[in-house]
Amino acid sequence: MRLYRLKRLFVGTPLPTAQARHERLSKRTGLAIFASDNLSSVAYATEEIMRVLILAGVAALSLSTPISIAIGAVICIVIYSYRQTIVAYPQGASDYIVAKDNLGTAAGLVAGSALLIDYTLTVAVSVSAGIAAVTSAVPGLFPYRVVLCVAALALIAYGNLRGLRESGRLFALPSYLFIAGFLVLIATGFARYAIRGEPTAPPTEVEAPLGALSVFLVLRAFASGAVALTGIEAVADGVQAFKPPEVKNARTVLAVLGIIMLTLFIGTTALADLFNIVPRDEETVVSQLARAVFGGGPLYYYLQGVSTLILILAANTAFADFPRLAFFMSRDGYLPRQFGNRGDRLVFSNGVVILAVIAAGLVVVFHGSTHALIPLYAVGVFTSFTLSQTSMVRRWLRTRPDGWWWRVAVNGIGGATTAVVLVVVAATKFVDGAWIVVVLIGFFILTFLAIRHHYDDVARQLSLEGYEGPPPISHSVLVLVGDLHRGVAEALQYAKTLSPEAKAVYVELDPERTRRLEERWVKHGLGVPLIVLTSPYRSLLGPFLGYIDHLVQRDGRHIVTIVLPEFIPARWWQHLLHNQTALLIKGALLFRKNVIVTDVPYHLKD
Amino acid sequence: MRLYRLKRLFVGTPLPTAQARHERLSKRTGLAIFASDNLSSVAYATEEIMRVLILAGVAALSLSTPISIAIGAVICIVIYSYRQTIVAYPQGASDYIVAKDNLGTAAGLVAGSALLIDYTLTVAVSVSAGIAAVTSAVPGLFPYRVVLCVAALALIAYGNLRGLRESGRLFALPSYLFIAGFLVLIATGFARYAIRGEPTAPPTEVEAPLGALSVFLVLRAFASGAVALTGIEAVADGVQAFKPPEVKNARTVLAVLGIIMLTLFIGTTALADLFNIVPRDEETVVSQLARAVFGGGPLYYYLQGVSTLILILAANTAFADFPRLAFFMSRDGYLPRQFGNRGDRLVFSNGVVILAVIAAGLVVVFHGSTHALIPLYAVGVFTSFTLSQTSMVRRWLRTRPDGWWWRVAVNGIGGATTAVVLVVVAATKFVDGAWIVVVLIGFFILTFLAIRHHYDDVARQLSLEGYEGPPPISHSVLVLVGDLHRGVAEALQYAKTLSPEAKAVYVELDPERTRRLEERWVKHGLGVPLIVLTSPYRSLLGPFLGYIDHLVQRDGRHIVTIVLPEFIPARWWQHLLHNQTALLIKGALLFRKNVIVTDVPYHLKD
Repeated sequence: MRLYRLKRLFVGTPLPTAQARHERLSKRTGLAIFASDNLSSVAYATEEIMRVLILAGVAALSLSTPISIAIGAVICIVIYSYRQTIVAYPQGASDYIVAKDNLGTAAGLVAGSALLIDYTLTVAVSVSAGIAAVTSAVPGLFPYRVVLCVAALALIAYGNLRGLRESGRLFALPSYLFIAGFLVLIATGFARYAIRGEPTAPPTEVEAPLGALSVFLVLRAFASGAVALTGIEAVADGVQAFKPPEVKNARTVLAVLGIIMLTLFIGTTALADLFNIVPRDEETVVSQLARAVFGGGPLYYYLQGVSTLILILAANTAFADFPRLAFFMSRDGYLPRQFGNRGDRLVFSNGVVILAVIAAGLVVVFHGSTHALIPLYAVGVFTSFTLSQTSMVRRWLRTRPDGWWWRVAVNGIGGATTAVVLVVVAATKFVDGAWIVVVLIGFFILTFLAIRHHYDDVARQLSLEGYEGPPPISHSVLVLVGDLHRGVAEALQYAKTLSPEAKAVYVELDPERTRRLEERWVKHGLGVPLIVLTSPYRSLLGPFLGYIDHLVQRDGRHIVTIVLPEFIPARWWQHLLHNQTALLIKGALLFRKNVIVTDVPYHLKD
Repeated sequence: MRLYRLKRLFVGTPLPTAQARHERLSKRTGLAIFASDNLSSVAYATEEIMRVLILAGVAALSLSTPISIAIGAVICIVIYSYRQTIVAYPQGASDYIVAKDNLGTAAGLVAGSALLIDYTLTVAVSVSAGIAAVTSAVPGLFPYRVVLCVAALALIAYGNLRGLRESGRLFALPSYLFIAGFLVLIATGFARYAIRGEPTAPPTEVEAPLGALSVFLVLRAFASGAVALTGIEAVADGVQAFKPPEVKNARTVLAVLGIIMLTLFIGTTALADLFNIVPRDEETVVSQLARAVFGGGPLYYYLQGVSTLILILAANTAFADFPRLAFFMSRDGYLPRQFGNRGDRLVFSNGVVILAVIAAGLVVVFHGSTHALIPLYAVGVFTSFTLSQTSMVRRWLRTRPDGWWWRVAVNGIGGATTAVVLVVVAATKFVDGAWIVVVLIGFFILTFLAIRHHYDDVARQLSLEGYEGPPPISHSVLVLVGDLHRGVAEALQYAKTLSPEAKAVYVELDPERTRRLEERWVKHGLGVPLIVLTSPYRSLLGPFLGYIDHLVQRDGRHIVTIVLPEFIPARWWQHLLHNQTALLIKGALLFRKNVIVTDVPYHLKD
């Protein structure tokens, strides 16, 4: 075999892991980058708790602080559990992979679909909450919130399509500005309260409460606030992004993140409670609180600004996570290959575009309301948490490392806790929208399996195992002509290079035109024989297809190549004025076996 | 030259003229078929006059009868003129052809665009008015009028796509039922009035009139009522549809149509005036009148039913006229060829689909309101009338047949009258929407000229005059492979039939995969040399395009054929899972000169 190689200066590097895209991160930068998804929920989690409690009247709002403490306890448990996951998967691993490795394909697919939904909702919720921070500060923009959300989404998607990546320091800044802002808010707020006492009278009941305070309502409030856990898994996904020692650094960062999160979330909730904030549609709870504490000055606008910034950043994180997970799943054959080819920039875009379109659809359907989207959100998050923790338990039981019983206990408690939360979330939010996610997870799993089945089937059909090579073929070349001009002449010449036996075929609709064509053929037909097919029913396609079928049905395997002269106009709109016949023919021949259609372009000048 | 002919039993008939599609029609059937477009305007023309007059208060409504008589006079003049056109164009001719023949290209294009707009509006107005007749009888359907309009449009378009044609008697029935219904309405109405006197008290002024009764308002009312002339030209277009003697029969039918039209239109208007009907949005004037005359019984529902029927039929007429005119204009190179190939059913559909889509758009934008559409309607109609009559004057002056001065006088008066009406319509309706049509006519003319220019340019570039034949070419065949499997093996075999020198090209992204591919190539590569291109930037396309450019730039004219193995899955959704690379390559190579891409399909089994 004659091998002809064109060697270039250097060879493409092997497929990088997801994290290799980042520069290696110090603890400080790493914290900021992985924190945005989780911390940003401080901007809306408190409000979601209060919005449920208010249904039982303003008095019930005082339950928000204990509920936030209960959620804080869950956060501690989950973070403690994930610190163990980091040790077990030092190369970093998505819950999809962890579940698939330890619990099998089914669990992996459940986790995968839960995560894809989760990432999509992260984008929709974060963008909605980010724009809510803007419209709280500038109420005149409230009617345009959906348009603003879609514009923000388009911007993020565009940035990602152009190849925007988390570039260290620049992306770290908003997280620290956000943390600083909330710490100042909480400190000032408590100081003010300590000095001046309750700043406003407790609000009186404006309208009769919609329902009584029940255990179910408290559980619903808890379930709503549980969105504060979203994004905790990000550090465990990205261990390899840290400078060595990666595992130690990642574990430290996760612990610090937990402490900051607890401070900000419980602090904000307690303060909102003390300041007698009542949730309203037009202004976020955080905005009301900041107005009450800062009195509306520059610090107020600063806080709204950094809230928007970190929420946009959280949405941006999902734009990295979604295509990466889609890549893993397509590599395993559960998603179309289009998501799989990391080397090709165009293909990467598919994940970004699909995520942007679906998230934009959600924002439009839910009128840019964070509150309306929340019931869909937490089911996916806690499904993947639970599967991930259960996987770890299974793993410890199987590998039995030192102290395995302690590790089983940690992840077991973690998994049990998130499972309980999952049940609470699904049950209390079911009619509000959680059912949609349950249905979707099921639908996605069936789709994944169908795709995988198809790819397996194709691989079997294409396998070279026991293959004796293709059967021998014979071949004829036909040029379909409707006229004779320079374009046709070039197509005839090309056809002759494919086969010296090439023929031209003309379907006669008008005998007079045939006569004129044959006259010109003598001079310009390049010696290619012209076959004239008559058309009893004035159809162009019918006689031609009949003729092709007649050829293909010859003995043995006979392949017919149809050469179609086709214009390539100089301007885009001129395409509309040509080639309709070529398109028709191609459409009609697309599914015929042993027929191959070749366009011979003739480039028109302007 | 070896000529090989496949002769079939019979040869396709020559291109039939538009009218040859019909069976030849008796006067009675012909009247019914050509009448629907014109007569159907009785269902809304009276109302349009009244809707303008009401702006000056209910007292002004008494002017509607004299205005309808004035319009009746114009109808007489136009019909008399068109009876002359029939003599001059016994083969039938659209105003586009008449204007182009006698006044030149520019006038023809003005008439052509005016007619295309006219036909489109006929569809939108007739369907809206037809549905208005339904919602007047069943007020509960009023909120769904736009949906009903679009559904009716879809039905008509579907019928025409499936090849529904005016089949004599069946289509004649609604016209006679409609004529009978209105004659009974008018007779009963006048009888009732004669016996019982004014049936209801004259309405008192409900609200202050919006303006004073001015000459301008009267002219606007006249311009609105002038829609009663639409469709008069239909008989002259279709002379050849009549049984011999065609000219005599067509002239008789046109005269009879005129008499019926005058009776129905003036009769209905006078009766509405006598019965003190006041136009309202929710119920048509004809419906109110019929309720008042018949008292709501079966005769009322009959009248509404046949009104809807004839209006749908009028819309259907435009579905025959529009594609036919588009055919004439595309034959002359002013519209895309897609409209031109009459023999091919698929291509005919283009006119039908485009007409349906634009008319549906109009109905939606104008909320299914006949009244809102009317200002756009009459400009196109009277533009083509005026051009047609002017053409006839020019023709008589040139050909000077017996009694030419009399003929000049008839068409001259006709043309002058319609020109005056055109000016009145354009001036009084300009701000209401007539300006849109004026702008559109201009835009269309520019488009027609650009299309014609392009086709002329292409014809010049393709001309064989002075052509010495294509330059000699050399040729190489490359199979682009990403793997080696049965599909690739068949593509390799095919490539070898195109050229014994065929080579395979592989872009290396991972040296390890290359090594494995080369191992399998030895056994299954069919002896085709494998060229491995390295890709420094992990791009698939870059190195491949570079290699092709390198080949194409050889001495002389070198053509490269790229063979792409491509899957044809068994089910439609599976297409989404394959071929993205093939698509990418095709997109990248589409505009390269001397490169031809050939897909070799590999048909997957289910």
